[in-house]
Amino acid sequence: MKVAVIGGTGYGGVELIRLLAHHPHAELSAVLSHTQSGKDLVEVYPHLTGIVEQTVHALDVEQLAETHDLVFLATPSGVSKDILPQLVEKGIRCIDLAGDFRLKDPQLYPQWYHHEPASDAYLQKAVYGLSEIYREEIAQAQFIANPGCYPTAALLGLIPILKAGWIDPHTVIIDAKSGVSGAGRKQSLATHFSETNENLKVYKLGVHQHIPEIEQILSNVGQQEVKITFATHLVPMTRGIMCTMYVQLNEGKTTKEIIDLYHSFYERDAFVRIRPEGVWPATKEVYGSNYCDIGLAHDQRTGRLVIVSVIDNLVKGAAGQAIQNMNIMNNWDETTGLNVLPVYP
Amino acid sequence: MKVAVIGGTGYGGVELIRLLAHHPHAELSAVLSHTQSGKDLVEVYPHLTGIVEQTVHALDVEQLAETHDLVFLATPSGVSKDILPQLVEKGIRCIDLAGDFRLKDPQLYPQWYHHEPASDAYLQKAVYGLSEIYREEIAQAQFIANPGCYPTAALLGLIPILKAGWIDPHTVIIDAKSGVSGAGRKQSLATHFSETNENLKVYKLGVHQHIPEIEQILSNVGQQEVKITFATHLVPMTRGIMCTMYVQLNEGKTTKEIIDLYHSFYERDAFVRIRPEGVWPATKEVYGSNYCDIGLAHDQRTGRLVIVSVIDNLVKGAAGQAIQNMNIMNNWDETTGLNVLPVYP
Amino acid sequence: MKVAVIGGTGYGGVELIRLLAHHPHAELSAVLSHTQSGKDLVEVYPHLTGIVEQTVHALDVEQLAETHDLVFLATPSGVSKDILPQLVEKGIRCIDLAGDFRLKDPQLYPQWYHHEPASDAYLQKAVYGLSEIYREEIAQAQFIANPGCYPTAALLGLIPILKAGWIDPHTVIIDAKSGVSGAGRKQSLATHFSETNENLKVYKLGVHQHIPEIEQILSNVGQQEVKITFATHLVPMTRGIMCTMYVQLNEGKTTKEIIDLYHSFYERDAFVRIRPEGVWPATKEVYGSNYCDIGLAHDQRTGRLVIVSVIDNLVKGAAGQAIQNMNIMNNWDETTGLNVLPVYP
Amino acid sequence: MKVAVIGGTGYGGVELIRLLAHHPHAELSAVLSHTQSGKDLVEVYPHLTGIVEQTVHALDVEQLAETHDLVFLATPSGVSKDILPQLVEKGIRCIDLAGDFRLKDPQLYPQWYHHEPASDAYLQKAVYGLSEIYREEIAQAQFIANPGCYPTAALLGLIPILKAGWIDPHTVIIDAKSGVSGAGRKQSLATHFSETNENLKVYKLGVHQHIPEIEQILSNVGQQEVKITFATHLVPMTRGIMCTMYVQLNEGKTTKEIIDLYHSFYERDAFVRIRPEGVWPATKEVYGSNYCDIGLAHDQRTGRLVIVSVIDNLVKGAAGQAIQNMNIMNNWDETTGLNVLPVYP
Repeated sequence: MKVAVIGGTGYGGVELIRLLAHHPHAELSAVLSHTQSGKDLVEVYPHLTGIVEQTVHALDVEQLAETHDLVFLATPSGVSKDILPQLVEKGIRCIDLAGDFRLKDPQLYPQWYHHEPASDAYLQKAVYGLSEIYREEIAQAQFIANPGCYPTAALLGLIPILKAGWIDPHTVIIDAKSGVSGAGRKQSLATHFSETNENLKVYKLGVHQHIPEIEQILSNVGQQEVKITFATHLVPMTRGIMCTMYVQLNEGKTTKEIIDLYHSFYERDAFVRIRPEGVWPATKEVYGSNYCDIGLAHDQRTGRLVIVSVIDNLVKGAAGQAIQNMNIMNNWDETTGLNVLPVYP
Repeated sequence: MKVAVIGGTGYGGVELIRLLAHHPHAELSAVLSHTQSGKDLVEVYPHLTGIVEQTVHALDVEQLAETHDLVFLATPSGVSKDILPQLVEKGIRCIDLAGDFRLKDPQLYPQWYHHEPASDAYLQKAVYGLSEIYREEIAQAQFIANPGCYPTAALLGLIPILKAGWIDPHTVIIDAKSGVSGAGRKQSLATHFSETNENLKVYKLGVHQHIPEIEQILSNVGQQEVKITFATHLVPMTRGIMCTMYVQLNEGKTTKEIIDLYHSFYERDAFVRIRPEGVWPATKEVYGSNYCDIGLAHDQRTGRLVIVSVIDNLVKGAAGQAIQNMNIMNNWDETTGLNVLPVYP
Repeated sequence: MKVAVIGGTGYGGVELIRLLAHHPHAELSAVLSHTQSGKDLVEVYPHLTGIVEQTVHALDVEQLAETHDLVFLATPSGVSKDILPQLVEKGIRCIDLAGDFRLKDPQLYPQWYHHEPASDAYLQKAVYGLSEIYREEIAQAQFIANPGCYPTAALLGLIPILKAGWIDPHTVIIDAKSGVSGAGRKQSLATHFSETNENLKVYKLGVHQHIPEIEQILSNVGQQEVKITFATHLVPMTRGIMCTMYVQLNEGKTTKEIIDLYHSFYERDAFVRIRPEGVWPATKEVYGSNYCDIGLAHDQRTGRLVIVSVIDNLVKGAAGQAIQNMNIMNNWDETTGLNVLPVYP
Repeated sequence: MKVAVIGGTGYGGVELIRLLAHHPHAELSAVLSHTQSGKDLVEVYPHLTGIVEQTVHALDVEQLAETHDLVFLATPSGVSKDILPQLVEKGIRCIDLAGDFRLKDPQLYPQWYHHEPASDAYLQKAVYGLSEIYREEIAQAQFIANPGCYPTAALLGLIPILKAGWIDPHTVIIDAKSGVSGAGRKQSLATHFSETNENLKVYKLGVHQHIPEIEQILSNVGQQEVKITFATHLVPMTRGIMCTMYVQLNEGKTTKEIIDLYHSFYERDAFVRIRPEGVWPATKEVYGSNYCDIGLAHDQRTGRLVIVSVIDNLVKGAAGQAIQNMNIMNNWDETTGLNVLPVYP
């Protein structure tokens, strides 16, 4: 199957290229980019020398539609909302790594994304690609809104206990920390090495665009409106997201009972790993891989549950989950091309 | 005035040496260490070449008492509880950077510190050296239990709003993140470079010895028993602590009103800086300095207050605050020797 | 084919485990370790949860010989010299990642390694596993002395021009820089995070045990005695080695001619990549992969050639090259199991 | 004395601000910047809150000349060549941290700096501010060309042995490594965190503008034309420069004799520290301070001398040396305001 990556020269795009190179059924046959078109990919990313040697092209929807079966869109926010419908109308299946189709309520876009929403029809038709939760819908979808990096880590950590009804959904606090690659390859003062190295920063506190995304899914799963407190931190490392989450338990469940619940919830999910009692996951333990690792403890002194969830933001938080979704859409084994181990240390 | 540092070859000790070198009234005349005695200090720390050249000696209480007015103890947990009383009995004033005298309830020591408590008389007599809050008691004290690094950041961030009665004291959640120097110079797998670099880890979640310390002071200030949820994270950087804190507001105060409260609370405190609305502190902004910087926002969507507090764990969280306390005890200007700027970038 | 890893809980060992998991022909059936025996591998390395779940065992030569075809030794210096002969005598093929069999002259061991040499018969029989250079000897070998990390980077950068006779072999200067994982998982002050982060250090200058290894091979290839100046630096990163090398050119070759020479020399070598003129390799461009990337420039102002060579010290500098050698020994395609892409960024 | 900083919002400028805040005789009364004028300094650098609170202004030469005695220019390359003469003509003494006045030969500017030279009269009049070497000229100067960061480290390491005539001046190889702050606050792909962290890169090899600067001074000191090989590397840390230098010894001097030579050469220089035999300096040992630390070893096997020299690029490599020069120009003690200790760890 021939696939293309639009926005292939950003970090999400180049991670797709890395993972697709391992994939037995999908062949990457076009890398498209507005800003880098005409260059050889190895000029932009010398580490691909001798591995993936292609010229980067500008997007030509007609031509793409003729030659490709599935397209990944790894474009900046606000770009895919206009491109994806054109591709879908030509019968191409699409997986959008941006946020353009994640929210059902169009009014949220001006507020949180500062741009206009995609067409409402497309917003409603979009399937949210949190693979472990919406597997059946994904299998039927023509296009996927691939989840954000923070929402992936947060939701996989929260959904089992929320669905079980063991927590008060009005008490969800998510303290989220990310490596810097989440901000992409575009330069800014915030991602300038000397400002970020040996520094820990808060950013977008209370205004991060992933807030409505998490709330939409939690409300959907919890069957009532859920509002969260969400604080985001920039950690001096390249890859990795950790969400430390605090919720009030309704009932006196032990840590063991809670861990059992999670094991049972994720028993058929190869990419979710639950740590035993007293052991916590670290971001390096999923580095470069598609795993989401979760640790849990009931803080008996306060009746709160603490959930720690880690992913590699560029893999399970972006390109890896996109490929997982492609696998589901094609009825391939979900782990195809994704069985790369974490790189440790 | 002649001062000595016991445990002078750990990171707390060497930071005392750095700061004391700037101090106009205190002369560092002895550096004592059990493990390094007999060595030249510059063998242990070559960066002190030509600046502080002394031989490290083993502790001799008699001799120390004859020649020194004030002693800093920067020894590992469980050591000062036996040494400090001997020094105090000889009339020496002491500032203990360890936790041995911070808790009033002796029963907490076996549980949280895994060693026996100091003598109860000394525990009760100890003055907790959170300079901005207990200034008057410190001025009269013969010895000081210098606060822990996390408690310093957490308490300075929480006390104003707790004291004002604007929050529900049963909702305090502290998500704490620290650079690695907080773990000292002693080697362990957890602080091994290849395990820690490009990694974000949770550790001691729910069992950190700073929990009872924070609770004791919050209960004291809030005049009711306060229990907190406290999660600690190891960040791949050397210096810096950030506490991101979540509390439920009782009343609909605006962010502006809250910021005003903090400004007013700390108006005579040179080392506490409150960020304006919408601006958050970063650890690098206090690097190498004695500042505690605080940012605040009322999350209107959930009625929670988010407080972010940062310090340099080795300065305001240890050596700097110890010197601040020495200044208070001697009725010197509180900032004496501490007006070093943050090193940025 | 069943393979075992002795010393499987060090960084070289765990990298073998990562790469062997991708290998279609070799099955890792035993992980052996003196210090960790009896533990589950996932206790030692939680990132292997659900992927490689085995109990770590102590070495039993008899049993190992009965069940395994090939053994990797990733033990500390001085251990394999006693174990490997026992295995080889039982007919097991071995690949030793330590330095115990790399040097032909036994007298060099006390001087550079501070331990006794292996038996002379074994030293002489050992085949040096620099895959690209000694492919034919490796194919016939019963056991391999896998090259050191620095020697791999240095030799692949130097051999083409030395063999061509275009440089003065008495002018070789190697400025070598390494990430910290090269020092292994064993803790020391030098690899303690707070000492190493935000720091650049020189270590073992002029006394590094890789000096005689590099000199032996250069002398062999250059057919005259070669002495080098070799300085090693510790860089605040986990993975990666860079050797910046300076040699005097005999003749006025242009950079283009030199680059052509290297292209031609390595034309059948999938893992050596030569950068075009004016482009230099960076360590991140080989991160996690088996590549050695080389950049070259004739400094016309001084008549010197500057060669920059980078590898991932744990892959091409250790586990990856060991697997490459296993492939050669078994007449499998040399890249089998090694076609993992660099992880970038 | 009133001083101003032009270009005060770059890293060189803000480091001047940090150090001037400690200075007893110089008062920073104006911070000027083209790009940030009109802003409060604490908006640009929040770490200065409560310490240095000024509005940033645009440059007005007339006004500056009326109110200031000495001006530091910390502007980007090519800016001070036009501004400095205007200030000097009005009688203001100037210290230029850029390279605009460092080279005597105007023809070198188009080649190495890619801009036009300053007026020849000014180039010839400029005094090169390598404090330890040109102290007397600096004392008399009206304006100073403050040395580059690499040249400072390289020259202080090379000059004693070159001046002694113990080395062959045609064999100088400088392998230079720098932290990222040397590239300033201006954003680029090369200084983007995700590209630089966990990476070691070569850049500007053979074309760095510091080459002619080093050669000019070495030729001047060595009294013959000296050409060097100079390779520059970007290290994933914020501050610190290390030059590892290789030169051929003329005579069989021992390491001890060489170390004695350096001790004697720098005996009256508070900021140069020579390590004992077998001990090498690390960049962290000078972090935040004005020291230049030097280690030396005669590699007996090859007859080469290896010199390792480290500085903090923003202090001794820029702002610190500028203040040292201001002190010399004013006949103040050379260490005034510069006795800040290295921040370690």
